[in-house]
Amino acid sequence: MAHRTILKQEHTFATTERETTREEDFPRWVRPGRSFALLTGCAQLAFLVIFYKRTNKGVPSPDMDSGAQSCYIGVTLMTFLGFGYLKAFLKAYGLGAVGFTMLIACLGLQWAIILDSLAHQSELAVDFPALLNGNMAVATVLVSFGALIGRISPTQIVMLVLIELSVYTVNKVFVVHQFDVRPHLHDGGGTIMVHVFGAYFGLAASLALGPAVKDRLRCSSYQSDIFSLIGTIFLWMFWPTFVAAGQETAAQQSKAFVNTVLALLTSTVTTFGFTQILQDGKIGTQAVQNATLAGGVTIGASAGIVGPFGAGALGMAAGALSTVAFARLPFFRAIDTCGIHNLHGLPGILGGAFSAFSPLFYSDTGIAPFDQMLSLCSTLLLALFAGFLCGLAFKAVEELHDDKDLRRAASEVGLDPSDLQIEPFSDAAFWVTGDGQPDVPVIEL
Amino acid sequence: MAHRTILKQEHTFATTERETTREEDFPRWVRPGRSFALLTGCAQLAFLVIFYKRTNKGVPSPDMDSGAQSCYIGVTLMTFLGFGYLKAFLKAYGLGAVGFTMLIACLGLQWAIILDSLAHQSELAVDFPALLNGNMAVATVLVSFGALIGRISPTQIVMLVLIELSVYTVNKVFVVHQFDVRPHLHDGGGTIMVHVFGAYFGLAASLALGPAVKDRLRCSSYQSDIFSLIGTIFLWMFWPTFVAAGQETAAQQSKAFVNTVLALLTSTVTTFGFTQILQDGKIGTQAVQNATLAGGVTIGASAGIVGPFGAGALGMAAGALSTVAFARLPFFRAIDTCGIHNLHGLPGILGGAFSAFSPLFYSDTGIAPFDQMLSLCSTLLLALFAGFLCGLAFKAVEELHDDKDLRRAASEVGLDPSDLQIEPFSDAAFWVTGDGQPDVPVIEL
Amino acid sequence: MAHRTILKQEHTFATTERETTREEDFPRWVRPGRSFALLTGCAQLAFLVIFYKRTNKGVPSPDMDSGAQSCYIGVTLMTFLGFGYLKAFLKAYGLGAVGFTMLIACLGLQWAIILDSLAHQSELAVDFPALLNGNMAVATVLVSFGALIGRISPTQIVMLVLIELSVYTVNKVFVVHQFDVRPHLHDGGGTIMVHVFGAYFGLAASLALGPAVKDRLRCSSYQSDIFSLIGTIFLWMFWPTFVAAGQETAAQQSKAFVNTVLALLTSTVTTFGFTQILQDGKIGTQAVQNATLAGGVTIGASAGIVGPFGAGALGMAAGALSTVAFARLPFFRAIDTCGIHNLHGLPGILGGAFSAFSPLFYSDTGIAPFDQMLSLCSTLLLALFAGFLCGLAFKAVEELHDDKDLRRAASEVGLDPSDLQIEPFSDAAFWVTGDGQPDVPVIEL
Repeated sequence: MAHRTILKQEHTFATTERETTREEDFPRWVRPGRSFALLTGCAQLAFLVIFYKRTNKGVPSPDMDSGAQSCYIGVTLMTFLGFGYLKAFLKAYGLGAVGFTMLIACLGLQWAIILDSLAHQSELAVDFPALLNGNMAVATVLVSFGALIGRISPTQIVMLVLIELSVYTVNKVFVVHQFDVRPHLHDGGGTIMVHVFGAYFGLAASLALGPAVKDRLRCSSYQSDIFSLIGTIFLWMFWPTFVAAGQETAAQQSKAFVNTVLALLTSTVTTFGFTQILQDGKIGTQAVQNATLAGGVTIGASAGIVGPFGAGALGMAAGALSTVAFARLPFFRAIDTCGIHNLHGLPGILGGAFSAFSPLFYSDTGIAPFDQMLSLCSTLLLALFAGFLCGLAFKAVEELHDDKDLRRAASEVGLDPSDLQIEPFSDAAFWVTGDGQPDVPVIEL
Repeated sequence: MAHRTILKQEHTFATTERETTREEDFPRWVRPGRSFALLTGCAQLAFLVIFYKRTNKGVPSPDMDSGAQSCYIGVTLMTFLGFGYLKAFLKAYGLGAVGFTMLIACLGLQWAIILDSLAHQSELAVDFPALLNGNMAVATVLVSFGALIGRISPTQIVMLVLIELSVYTVNKVFVVHQFDVRPHLHDGGGTIMVHVFGAYFGLAASLALGPAVKDRLRCSSYQSDIFSLIGTIFLWMFWPTFVAAGQETAAQQSKAFVNTVLALLTSTVTTFGFTQILQDGKIGTQAVQNATLAGGVTIGASAGIVGPFGAGALGMAAGALSTVAFARLPFFRAIDTCGIHNLHGLPGILGGAFSAFSPLFYSDTGIAPFDQMLSLCSTLLLALFAGFLCGLAFKAVEELHDDKDLRRAASEVGLDPSDLQIEPFSDAAFWVTGDGQPDVPVIEL
Repeated sequence: MAHRTILKQEHTFATTERETTREEDFPRWVRPGRSFALLTGCAQLAFLVIFYKRTNKGVPSPDMDSGAQSCYIGVTLMTFLGFGYLKAFLKAYGLGAVGFTMLIACLGLQWAIILDSLAHQSELAVDFPALLNGNMAVATVLVSFGALIGRISPTQIVMLVLIELSVYTVNKVFVVHQFDVRPHLHDGGGTIMVHVFGAYFGLAASLALGPAVKDRLRCSSYQSDIFSLIGTIFLWMFWPTFVAAGQETAAQQSKAFVNTVLALLTSTVTTFGFTQILQDGKIGTQAVQNATLAGGVTIGASAGIVGPFGAGALGMAAGALSTVAFARLPFFRAIDTCGIHNLHGLPGILGGAFSAFSPLFYSDTGIAPFDQMLSLCSTLLLALFAGFLCGLAFKAVEELHDDKDLRRAASEVGLDPSDLQIEPFSDAAFWVTGDGQPDVPVIEL
């Protein structure tokens, strides 16, 4: 393909020295610009100033009860370990999957707490309810990141956090009035607000950005698949905690917890059976990593309402839908790295629609079907619109894997520019990596 | 060895496309039959119907207290992450170890809850006590799976869950009357009911099935050993929770928790010292992965009785016994993939026998020595008998790695049939794997 | 380099048989001595005797409340999984990192509980407070181990546990009077007592031992870096639990928990921004693995005092200091395998010094600045002095990687002795390893 380019194995310089890379080691067009550090630093400083200005220093925070603490830890394990390792299925993007998940969570948690207090015009309180709400917001960004991972730069990741959480808060506080005295939307487990919003925001942003220029590294290795299952299991494990945390009464929390467990049990079993039929007798690793969790996505909006049968049936439907989507449906495949449409998008819509129709099957649901359906649709539309704008903003700032300087440099030396693009889905672009980085050539002029 | 067979590295087609395998890629004799999907689907549907018929929709489930929730999560982490990753020491069966553990747990938890309510002829309640009891039952199946892993097909795994849990429930409810008003057996930590039963059921089934036709892949790699230690640590960590959950009073729970911690501490230290003597000055990785947990197996039946000294001494004895068994004893080695006889079998018998004699050393144990010994023996015999029958049932359904169609096909082209068997302990037979699958040749005619 | 030595790849005999190594497989100078087993066995037996003699068999242990249990599990997960996997970044020392961490924790927890009861001349009680205090002591040893890992033998590891915990207990109970009625030191989160003490004890011991004879294996691989991030995340996750556990009142616990979360959030974000500037536009993997946790180290001594702004600002300062230290400061680099000076040493001194000056900014701190400063300095000096003596003791017992017998053997056959040293940072010296051990030649005469 390339005639005069030299493919140099990354590890030849990674082995010599672990933690420093010299200027001359860089492919010229990976500009080690300071935009990421500047943006991150400014955001962190601004957050700190807001904490200084807006928190009340006199009022003591309420006492910690051990339930709230367990709940915080469970939900935080989901965001850090669950989402982080689930995405580490990419064979050459494991550091980015886990590391950028940490960055998104740490930046996003602060920003979500600040935005929520601004939107409610209340005093800024950093306590357990605030941390829990913040973690739910962070989960939304991490869902969206699943579509974009491997194709956006660290600077664009920080932009994603800042933009998406603003829109998420507007949607939650002003459009669907979640957790208010008279909410339009019943969605304790975040089916609509987290999964549908996150999935379609991410897909729209990804659509605006366009598909990856190369997808040679968009695949898993045997090792990375086993890492990824750590993420699956931690998400599976603490999903009931996450759904229960959003319920109002203790009885509902208990019911929602057990129902979520049941939905996960049935969606996991269903996934195994369906993938074996759909994938020529073999079990699809990606389906097991993802579709097993679909029951948790779908049950969220009605976890406090349904009984054991309803929970089990919803889980089966979600698992089947998600497995079919992973194995057969081609929607968004080119722009959806982790398959968030199959795990969060479709099962989220299923769960949201079911919750709107749930008064047909259950009494005392407290759900107004029309409001619920309207909230689902408005969330979907807002996510698509805002996500697309966010993707355009990414494109305006930086086009990582299709760089203009690079094109010029290439044409100057008479090379085909397409051979000179930095590879997407590769940690080597952003991280100081150890040796054994799988199969990452650095193209040099 | 083979003259006219062609060894093709799996990754040559795994790299081209991640999630689909074409019909022609299959070795002809791995029939991608629908038996697994059919059996799994029918079981899941039947469970759902039972949930519909037998759960009372009127009575609200009891409120969740945070202790019960922590307890559920701890025990579930043991089954999913602990057992799953512990078994992932096999270098080419990591997906099967973690994935099939998920399948066993999700199918088994539902089946165990249903069986327990049927055996007690009580209403089917899906609540925290039911989930805890169900997880204990699932742990029994996962112990047995340790002997069979790598040599049974997904269909046979589902059979194992369905058969073993039925026998387990009969043993628990009718034979040893555990958790009843006047139990024959005191065994809060499952030493006899879970570990002895699970180990000898699995070994007997494995014996009926016969040893693996090839054991080239029955070994670990450097990476898989480190994955396996994740499992060890999670089992170690939540073992006290598991043992405490089975105690009756809060004081006993507290005592059992601390005693289990002590037994694990001493069995871990003892394992390190003994393996270094027994294995020529080196520390046995498999011993550290397994025998460190033997203290938890042994203490189970007397965790609410002994004091710190007794717990520490039991842990030392268990660690030493298990380490010697891993390093030197040849029993069952050929048919015991994970060494469950060394970790669950022998330490379980030690713990069961000690609990029967404990009234000699402690007062107010509530243990009737004769009943305890009888329960241990009847559990052992029932497990051996039922396990052997279960193994014969496996053989009747499918002989995975010694296929008749394959033999005929081989003889037709004049090949030695032994060169044409699909390799055991290999994920490539059942999973859509990423590239880098270690060393798995596919033999083609 | 070596002319007549033969480099044999370890896996050539590792593959043949997994769990036994024959005498002739050993390089002659790795004496598979019994010193480790003897020392470990004697220590374990002595502990058991002390448990027998000194625990009161009559008094029942207090009931377990679920908060204490969660707290125990959280802190133990930090020591086992957090410290263990964090250190597993070394590409050829993963088994040692995780395995020896288990050994240190299991031996150290028993010894710390015994020492504490001896120092207080109280009855030996094995209950939740004792387990928590013991885990804090174990964390100190694990910090020190970070400087020494890869260069000390199992025997020396056991010596480290026995010696360091004795000095730690003397410092805690007699010098700084922590947790007493009228303490000299306020340090609920262990900033001074755990991190400063552990870091400088380890560095002084490492200094006495001298730098590694070879550092070819002192680096990470792509896989080991991803394993290491598991450790980072578990430390990050349960650090708030660790800090809160050391506070006195429930209100302080709640405040300390939230403040530690905030400090970790800001130190993580700061680390990402700073490393990208300092390391030529790339994100330093080692900085992300370590410096993200610096906020937790620094906040420990004042977690119950500061507000959200103070916690955020301390976290930023700690993250920046630690990142600069990892990227640029050359102190101790040669003798500090994991960079404990950058993660525990400097941020610990920063946090200790800030706590002494905190009465300038906050009222009702309960801190006596002079006592606090004196405690910091005396802890630092005692750690350096005792650590250096401990390092000399290591040297007196064994010089693992510079063996006299080996030198003589080499000179007899006319070889350069420097070619015959066993490699540091290699699991192959102490463990029965699976195949695929990265790049570990065994040098044979």
